Formats: sequence, C-alpha cells, structure tokens
Amino acid sequence: MDHAFSESEREAVYRAIFERRDCRRFLPDPLPDSVVSRLLVAAHHAPSVGFMQPWNFILIRSAEVRSRIKAAFERANQSAAELFDGDKGTLYRDLKLEGILDSPLNLCVTCDRSRQGPVVLGRTIQPEMDLYSTVCAVQNLWLAARAEGVGVGWVSIIDPADLRLILGIPDTIVPIAYLCLGRVPEFPDTPELQRLGWLSRIDLEPLVFEEGWGRHLETFHLSLPDDDRS
Amino acid sequence: MDHAFSESEREAVYRAIFERRDCRRFLPDPLPDSVVSRLLVAAHHAPSVGFMQPWNFILIRSAEVRSRIKAAFERANQSAAELFDGDKGTLYRDLKLEGILDSPLNLCVTCDRSRQGPVVLGRTIQPEMDLYSTVCAVQNLWLAARAEGVGVGWVSIIDPADLRLILGIPDTIVPIAYLCLGRVPEFPDTPELQRLGWLSRIDLEPLVFEEGWGRHLETFHLSLPDDDRS
Repeated sequence: MDHAFSESEREAVYRAIFERRDCRRFLPDPLPDSVVSRLLVAAHHAPSVGFMQPWNFILIRSAEVRSRIKAAFERANQSAAELFDGDKGTLYRDLKLEGILDSPLNLCVTCDRSRQGPVVLGRTIQPEMDLYSTVCAVQNLWLAARAEGVGVGWVSIIDPADLRLILGIPDTIVPIAYLCLGRVPEFPDTPELQRLGWLSRIDLEPLVFEEGWGRHLETFHLSLPDDDRS
Repeated sequence: MDHAFSESEREAVYRAIFERRDCRRFLPDPLPDSVVSRLLVAAHHAPSVGFMQPWNFILIRSAEVRSRIKAAFERANQSAAELFDGDKGTLYRDLKLEGILDSPLNLCVTCDRSRQGPVVLGRTIQPEMDLYSTVCAVQNLWLAARAEGVGVGWVSIIDPADLRLILGIPDTIVPIAYLCLGRVPEFPDTPELQRLGWLSRIDLEPLVFEEGWGRHLETFHLSLPDDDRS
C-alpha cells in the first residue's frame, strides 16, 4: 500500500503494541534525561482535538513527594480491596498494583481544559475530547517507552483530589494519568492479571459489529494472527 | 538499555508517532479485510484498567448509514461554525473536517461501562478509567494504521445522541471515537491546522514541570530533536 512502512518497520510498530506491558516491578537505576526527553517528545506529538495540545507533564523524583503519593495510593487501595470478596479479595490483596517508590521516575500527565480559550475546534459538541487527546499522549509515551526498554505502569488507584493537593494542581487542570517509569527486570509475555487468572483476554470477533450495534460480522472476514499474541 | 528494541526498530516506532496524521482526504479504494483485521487486533491489545477490555468496534461501510452520519456531522458543524468569528470563522468554514463519505470505511469505537461487572480493579476511585482505556485502543489503531499506510481521521463534531440513534448503541455503551479510515493521497509533513495557521505547535519545555505544578525545570535537562519534528 502506498505510504506503508517497510515490513520490518511495520513489525517494529506491532512489536511495541504487543509487547507493551503495565509494569509494577522496577529496577532503581535512574533513566537518562535524553531517554525521558524522547518519551516526552513522543507524548507531545499525540493527536489533539483542534491541535489544542492540552497536556502538561510533572516529573516527580523527590522521595518526599513520592511517599505522600504512595500514602494516597494506600488509602485508596484499602477502600478498593474491601470491594472484592472471597478468592478475588484474597488475590486482590496479593497483587502488586504500583511501583511509586521502586521506580526512579513518576510522571503525572494532566489536561488543561482552558488551553486555547473557551472554544476549541472539534470540542464544541464533545467537550471530553481534550481529556481523550491527553490519553493519546499517554499511549504514545507508553509505546515509545517499550521501544526504549523502559517500563511504564499506570496507577489509577489514587484519589484525584489527593493528586491535586500533593502536586498543587489547580482546579482547571485535570490529572489524567499517574505513571511510574523505569528499567524493568522483564516485560512478561502476558499481562499480569491474565497470568494470575484475574481475567482472560476476550475473543475479539464477538466485539466487532457491522453497520450497527449488536450486528455480528456477515461480510467482513476477521483474520486473527496464528499465535495467541496475548 | 536491557529490553530496548534495536535502533532501527526504535526509529520505526518513533516514525509512526511523528508521521501519524489526522486525515480528512481519502482515496475510495477499499481496505483489505486482512489489513483492517490487523488494526483491530492492535486496538484490542491496548492497555485496559483491570484488564477490562471494554471496547467494541462497529465497522460501517453502508452508504445509507454513512449518509445519516454525515447529516449529523453537518448539523453539529453548523452550530460549531457559529462559535468562530471574523477570520477564524472564515477559515473554519473552509476547513475539511471529515471524510465520512470519501473514506471506504468508518469505524465507531465504543466503551461498555458494565463489562466485567460493577466493580473493576483499578477503576474504583477513578471511574473514567474505562473510557481512557478505550482511547488507548484508538491510539494503538491509529499508529498501526500509519505503519500500514492507512489514514485515520477522528470526527468529533457529531452529537453522541445522533451516533446512538443511527447505530443503535444502547444507553450503557459510550461512543468514544468515530473514525474514517482509508488509503490517502499523502501523509502531510505537518498537521493541517498548523499548516493553515489555525494554531502552532506549542514549545514543549514550558509544559514540563518538576515535583509539582508550575515548577519549571531545574535539575532535568530536556533535550529536543534538532529537526522541528512537527
């Protein structure tokens, strides 16, 4: 196809997509500023609604700040753990769900909802588009990090009010992602929650419809890779 | 760095990130099912909170369905255009903001908020995490598409209520992205809104803070690429 990458380039892009993992175990070695810079540039080149570029990036290495974040995680996680009963509850309590203090770098990615003024092209009838643009920046960074050999973990079990307080984030700014970054002992073959039997990967085919919700495939032939690229 | 890709693989991942574009001009040639399948598999391997995999994919090729979607875009865009005055208003009305009928394939990516039941690991205190997971799937697809030579455009100027009605999407399901996909005459060097002077790319450095909001870089050295990878 015109404009397609070479086969080896294409395979590299898919490799990043399939081998990206949500990492919770890190090596303490600091990341070179040059590598972190490349990840930030990758994030900054995400698509954004109306070219709004609503993101900011807060790099966090201070042990004191990270210990306050870790305490916020512990509070939220204690409440969360109570929601899972029986075997799930036991498994939940055994899971390692963050690497806030183990990783050499934490990164909070935020969305400035007022950037470029009150009216933004493309965000007129779907006001949440700026939040989604910021998530695209996170995913760019995550894939670039995989290519660099850098592990990334998204910690979502923190009350955003705690993030605001600890990091001094103003009311008009939305914290989107709190990430842990660092070298990792491994990128496992499968997601940890799958390996531990928390949930399995869903079959793709029943998730794909044609022409409307719930209308399963009739004319489109979904071809899946031979290996279980989980 | 251990686990890093080779230099050529890493460059391929960055190439996809930097050369991805929001496309509005398409060639009518249909996309092979095999290529579309690879894009869907890439989307399905996005990170998801608690391994929830909340997405569905509605493939839309029917001219009748697409003409209803196009009419919904026209309605939303007419209201939107009224929000831009003067030169911006003139420029806005000249912009091509979608390729709903020109592209051979439209794709609606949705988020099923009830998938995996009411309590999902990692979504207990940040309930919007499932929406963000679905956006990660969109970005995976977008980057894979660039590697395949397939253009993708995200049409956000449609009332989600119209999408629900036209595509029969139930109340519990949130439409996240309405995408146009197809071969394209070109992937321009810069985003169209930048080329036309709508907005410029923001300098990255002032967007990066250390240890807290608004605290500009002191110890971290942000190194930017020599070329203006816009």
